[in-house]
Amino acid sequence: MNRVLVLGGGQLGLMMAEAAARLGLVVDRYDPERALLLPGTSDLAVPISWEECQERYPVITVEREAFPEEGLSADLAKSDRCVARGALQVIPDRFTQKSMLDKLGIPTAPWVLLDKEEDLPAAVEQFGGVVVKARSGGYDGRGTWIVGEGGDLSAVPAAELAGKAIIEKKIPFRRELSIVGARSISGETLFYPLTRNWHVDGILRLSLAPANACADLQKPAEQMLKGIMEELDYAGVMAVEFFEVDGQLMVNEIAPRVHNSGHWTHEGADWSQFDLHVHALAGVPLHALNVHGPSAMVNLIGTPFENAWLQHPGVVHWYGKSVRPGRKVGHANLVADTLEGLREGLDAWADVLPEGYQAVLESELKLG
Amino acid sequence: MNRVLVLGGGQLGLMMAEAAARLGLVVDRYDPERALLLPGTSDLAVPISWEECQERYPVITVEREAFPEEGLSADLAKSDRCVARGALQVIPDRFTQKSMLDKLGIPTAPWVLLDKEEDLPAAVEQFGGVVVKARSGGYDGRGTWIVGEGGDLSAVPAAELAGKAIIEKKIPFRRELSIVGARSISGETLFYPLTRNWHVDGILRLSLAPANACADLQKPAEQMLKGIMEELDYAGVMAVEFFEVDGQLMVNEIAPRVHNSGHWTHEGADWSQFDLHVHALAGVPLHALNVHGPSAMVNLIGTPFENAWLQHPGVVHWYGKSVRPGRKVGHANLVADTLEGLREGLDAWADVLPEGYQAVLESELKLG
Ligand SMILES: Nc1ncnc2c1ncn2[C@@H]1O[C@H](COP(=O)(O)OP(=O)(O)OP(=O)(O)O)[C@@H](O)[C@H]1O
Ligand SMILES: Nc1ncnc2c1ncn2[C@@H]1O[C@H](COP(=O)(O)OP(=O)(O)OP(=O)(O)O)[C@@H](O)[C@H]1O
Ligand SMILES: [Mg+2]
Ligand SMILES: [Mg+2]
Ligand SMILES: [Mg+2]
Ligand SMILES: [Mg+2]
Repeated sequence: MNRVLVLGGGQLGLMMAEAAARLGLVVDRYDPERALLLPGTSDLAVPISWEECQERYPVITVEREAFPEEGLSADLAKSDRCVARGALQVIPDRFTQKSMLDKLGIPTAPWVLLDKEEDLPAAVEQFGGVVVKARSGGYDGRGTWIVGEGGDLSAVPAAELAGKAIIEKKIPFRRELSIVGARSISGETLFYPLTRNWHVDGILRLSLAPANACADLQKPAEQMLKGIMEELDYAGVMAVEFFEVDGQLMVNEIAPRVHNSGHWTHEGADWSQFDLHVHALAGVPLHALNVHGPSAMVNLIGTPFENAWLQHPGVVHWYGKSVRPGRKVGHANLVADTLEGLREGLDAWADVLPEGYQAVLESELKLG
Repeated sequence: MNRVLVLGGGQLGLMMAEAAARLGLVVDRYDPERALLLPGTSDLAVPISWEECQERYPVITVEREAFPEEGLSADLAKSDRCVARGALQVIPDRFTQKSMLDKLGIPTAPWVLLDKEEDLPAAVEQFGGVVVKARSGGYDGRGTWIVGEGGDLSAVPAAELAGKAIIEKKIPFRRELSIVGARSISGETLFYPLTRNWHVDGILRLSLAPANACADLQKPAEQMLKGIMEELDYAGVMAVEFFEVDGQLMVNEIAPRVHNSGHWTHEGADWSQFDLHVHALAGVPLHALNVHGPSAMVNLIGTPFENAWLQHPGVVHWYGKSVRPGRKVGHANLVADTLEGLREGLDAWADVLPEGYQAVLESELKLG
């Protein structure tokens, strides 16, 4: 029995544990904040030591990019057994992440360091619209400031950010897409079809897969992700977020873990990204990925559980977390035979979702 | 958070824990043989006392019918919190089970007690062909002796079985069907469509759902299961196995738990029988059951894991148990848009299954 330990006590690790059970494998979770082990899908927390981890877990993975500087999770993330070890040295800092993309010759939004306040007006001069991003710690759009061409720079705390941010050119993208794929310990790779993503206030709200009109983009996307995984000697699932501009892909950012835009695979494919992640790490050979049909994933954000959700076709995943504004507390997956069928399903769901969802659900979904 | 404890350390409880995680609920498992708690989907066994169980688990359920006579599992199974308490007083003994069916006026194969050796020839005289069944402890056809009309009675250890078995009339059934349904703590009920089952050597080998040509049988089946659940004041999922004779249903036996013939619901419906079971116990309202299409479940029996299985559309569930002849070690689910599609899928699977599967896969499947 190949057991896997995941560092992090959140929903991604929980969904890995759930997926592992399908093939009788075990994923336990180490919660760095509470310094406790959560066995499998349980909340029965137990203390665990470095020695016990060494004995029990030949493979360690992560569900997030950052860990406390000290303590067991930091040690485990740096250990030989952690298959994200290389990625954790590069990805969490946008400076090293963007530098790696440049080195690999992978297209990404042009960027400069924000080292001193004056770098900001200089970048605006050079790029027109800009996006300022904290080098580390940002997610769901936190730590990101978007300033369109001729926009007001005063909202950006440039003095505070000096030495701790990068400035990107603001890209006039047509769509946001992402790819999720896996690399096994022995180097095999496998990819899901490109997914289209809609963000509201920097938070992913809706994903649709397979994204429409991606015939010429799928292979390049796979090649980029494959190159990144190889460069980082990574094993498990990794995701890349793209901008589509002028029919080409440009990398936005990399997530060295299962990714929110891959949650549709729970019901949309025979094997989900969580299955794939666990299999890649436990030595189960990667396998045929049969996609069931046009699939949508609606993120449930800062909203309490509604029984009415259960009355609609589709499946709710609920993380059992306390509800706070802007917090991802679950997701709902819909799969249909046709895009029209999916459209109908989303219309029905719109009636039982809080305000703010209708706009994105009714948006340019036809673009796919 | 409503936690549920399941008594039993096998695959059914494991699949409950897996299902619970979908809605952020927790099912932990108590293994009576090892007297240890298995938290969620993990194999990290921890000791637990009656007091801790009282504190942690408002609801207790079971994944099997029989428990050691003494010890924590026996006490928990008899406690107020165990929603199968009533069923466990009636179902495990075929005498009390059949008596209840007679009392409820539910059709079942005619039967008598085997109290002394001479009861056997007398029953043969009365019934023609007979099936002798140990009153308790039998499963997968163990503890069952089938003797056709004019057949040889000497294979039945009648002296040994005296006082511990019943004798049923052998029913010339056209098909074996089953129904799986749930009753919530508040008395709501919900049912999956009737499933057709094929047994080989007394062990379920293949299920197909929804079974064909059941328009007139679905409602009666639901009524019978509903009546049984109410009689036993049961909560959770329960299954009834039927014989179809002359277009009517006759109960074979009752399983007060999730059931092998409901495993197709893993991929064949939005919510599986394991979801339904946990929801019924955790107070999640029962919900729409959307069936995805013709579904097949192939039991994997006594055969080692094959990587080739992963190369076919369909999903393998593997229990992580050691492989022994006749032991259920996993199941594979296929879902298609049409019966013809399912037929093709099963043909492809036949190539990667051990000998002995082909006959049943190619059998009268067209009957559905
Ligand atoms: N260079 C850019 N040009 C245009 N829009 C951008 C740019 N960079 C980011 N954005 C927009 O801001 C969103 C958030 O940016 P980014 O993905 O870098 O932030 P994040 O907080 O790390 O998000 P996540 O939660 O995905 O980790 C993007 O999805 C995109 O909509
Ligand atoms: N009265 C009967 N007439 C004809 N066949 C019967 C009869 N009783 C049982 N059988 C056959 O034997 C099989 C096993 O019987 P039964 O379901 O009672 O045993 P079991 O060992 O409890 O099985 P399970 O594993 O389903 O609990 C049935 O599925 C059916 O094929
Ligand atoms: Mg990010
Ligand atoms: Mg992002
Ligand atoms: Mg039985
Ligand atoms: Mg039976």
